[in-house]
Amino acid sequence: MREFDLIARYFAPLAGPGGLGLVDDAAMVKSPVGHDLIITCDAIAAGTHFFADDPPATIGHKLLAVNLSDLAAKGAAPLGFVLSLHLSKKAMPDEAWMAAFVEGLGALAKDAGIQLLGGDTVMQDGPLNLSITAFGLVPTGRMLKRSGAQVGDLLVVTGFIGDGALGLRERIAQRSGVTSSLTADHSGYLIDRYLRPQPRLKMAQAFRRHAHACMDISDGLIGDCARLLSASGKGGTLRLADVPKSVAVRAALRENPKLIEQVVTGGDDYELLAAVSPANWERLEEACLQQGLLPVVIGAVTEASDGFRVLDEAGKGIRFAKGSYTHEAEQ
Amino acid sequence: MREFDLIARYFAPLAGPGGLGLVDDAAMVKSPVGHDLIITCDAIAAGTHFFADDPPATIGHKLLAVNLSDLAAKGAAPLGFVLSLHLSKKAMPDEAWMAAFVEGLGALAKDAGIQLLGGDTVMQDGPLNLSITAFGLVPTGRMLKRSGAQVGDLLVVTGFIGDGALGLRERIAQRSGVTSSLTADHSGYLIDRYLRPQPRLKMAQAFRRHAHACMDISDGLIGDCARLLSASGKGGTLRLADVPKSVAVRAALRENPKLIEQVVTGGDDYELLAAVSPANWERLEEACLQQGLLPVVIGAVTEASDGFRVLDEAGKGIRFAKGSYTHEAEQ
Repeated sequence: MREFDLIARYFAPLAGPGGLGLVDDAAMVKSPVGHDLIITCDAIAAGTHFFADDPPATIGHKLLAVNLSDLAAKGAAPLGFVLSLHLSKKAMPDEAWMAAFVEGLGALAKDAGIQLLGGDTVMQDGPLNLSITAFGLVPTGRMLKRSGAQVGDLLVVTGFIGDGALGLRERIAQRSGVTSSLTADHSGYLIDRYLRPQPRLKMAQAFRRHAHACMDISDGLIGDCARLLSASGKGGTLRLADVPKSVAVRAALRENPKLIEQVVTGGDDYELLAAVSPANWERLEEACLQQGLLPVVIGAVTEASDGFRVLDEAGKGIRFAKGSYTHEAEQ
Repeated sequence: MREFDLIARYFAPLAGPGGLGLVDDAAMVKSPVGHDLIITCDAIAAGTHFFADDPPATIGHKLLAVNLSDLAAKGAAPLGFVLSLHLSKKAMPDEAWMAAFVEGLGALAKDAGIQLLGGDTVMQDGPLNLSITAFGLVPTGRMLKRSGAQVGDLLVVTGFIGDGALGLRERIAQRSGVTSSLTADHSGYLIDRYLRPQPRLKMAQAFRRHAHACMDISDGLIGDCARLLSASGKGGTLRLADVPKSVAVRAALRENPKLIEQVVTGGDDYELLAAVSPANWERLEEACLQQGLLPVVIGAVTEASDGFRVLDEAGKGIRFAKGSYTHEAEQ
């Protein structure tokens, strides 16, 4: 199937007027007066960020979801996206694959109320690589940054942490034919959370109004929290006992308590992490509850000189590093 | 070298205030009142669009150039870009490679007066893949499209056609250790034109003012001309005798006249092709000359019912198809 046919058949239906039917060299968007344009770019590659044999609808979903998650973290309303599709010459997707990929991508685009604006398709010698640049709008000067955390702010997350990381673990076992020690329900739930992360777009406006700083958790709660505090020039404390964990994660931790490391450092959560002043907390909580999300306070922002401390379930300092973790007391 | 180090060392220096130092999840651009934002996305892959052993500075240059060329064709003033870097795990670039790549990319960005706004870096199992999404501005409603050609318009190109295609041929010979039949000067000129295409950004405003339709020539003059006419719902005539050819291309054609097919169908020209009313031609010519470019009229736009005719040097109809060409008279 040639690029022209691919575009006409699968991608033109996702395109809006701004994409000019995807027949021109470029797309056009109008940025309404009183708004700034927010731009984010996230790429994923087969064998690194997803498995080539993942259901294609979930690959399309995830590719867009990770970008929309960045827009949500900036407090932006999504506007559109462009797609860069690096297809593998050696393993060209068939029509069923392409149709399912576009279905997953298109369903999330529709949910978010956005259209495909353009893109490029290249055939290349490696495995499938995908990249999206997504656009959103915020009122002028109101983009939510990582760097705005203030001493005394609460550290807040929008939902369960660790589903994605343990979902990856379950998916690896599934692909190897290893039977999970979890129930089928728990294992299925975790795999779905890994394959189909849910960007918290509906919370973008509330966080923009009520949070001082925000980012999405894509590279592990601990590391991303450290990055938010570092960008803000602050210290902080994070209490593992307060990190919200799904029933499935709690079941896995009962079997193997050491999995706590994967839960809080493993990534693929795509929940929001924010620094919120105590005065705004109730308003933010109310806004989240209205969207069916239960936000949870997991720590606090402190002076930079305090550093970043993580407290374990017993309230003792704990460190995680490069796949191993050590209690501070044992060093 | 980790992604964070890569960004801090090589890419942060290319970033402007809109890129927020590349430490946040997203970038912000302000689209000035009275302007539309133009977006284009072009990807290139090692082994397909460039050779992995091409000089890295030329890879960086070409990646940005092909995107800026699309902006020029839309009549847009460039604003900024995001970069998606899919590095090969098996052939990770060393520091010298990365420094040269960024130098080539950065030099062209500086020439164009634009900054890096953000991007993503992924490690993956295939060869190097690169993608840029670039942004530009046009006054509201004034984007130059492919689809505006009118009957009676002149078909105009901004410079020599075929340098890129024969440059690729010379580069292939060079990599195979085959001695070129051209002089070293001619061969070197063609290879440079292939490796370092020059986007016609300085002509963007003049074409926006004086042309009815425009596109950049990336996939071969004949095919791209057919696409412009098709998008406009028109027919046209293109005279090969009038297509401007460099001294090097003319030398190659004297040796092997059949190379005319590669010259006009081979791609990688990155000159502009436009439909211009005769009343505007002199103004456009004057604007090009001021920028040191010699625009040339190579044909005319006609009614759709005339189809698209290409006339050879003798003025006879000629067709090119899939790597072979046949004179109409011989069919």
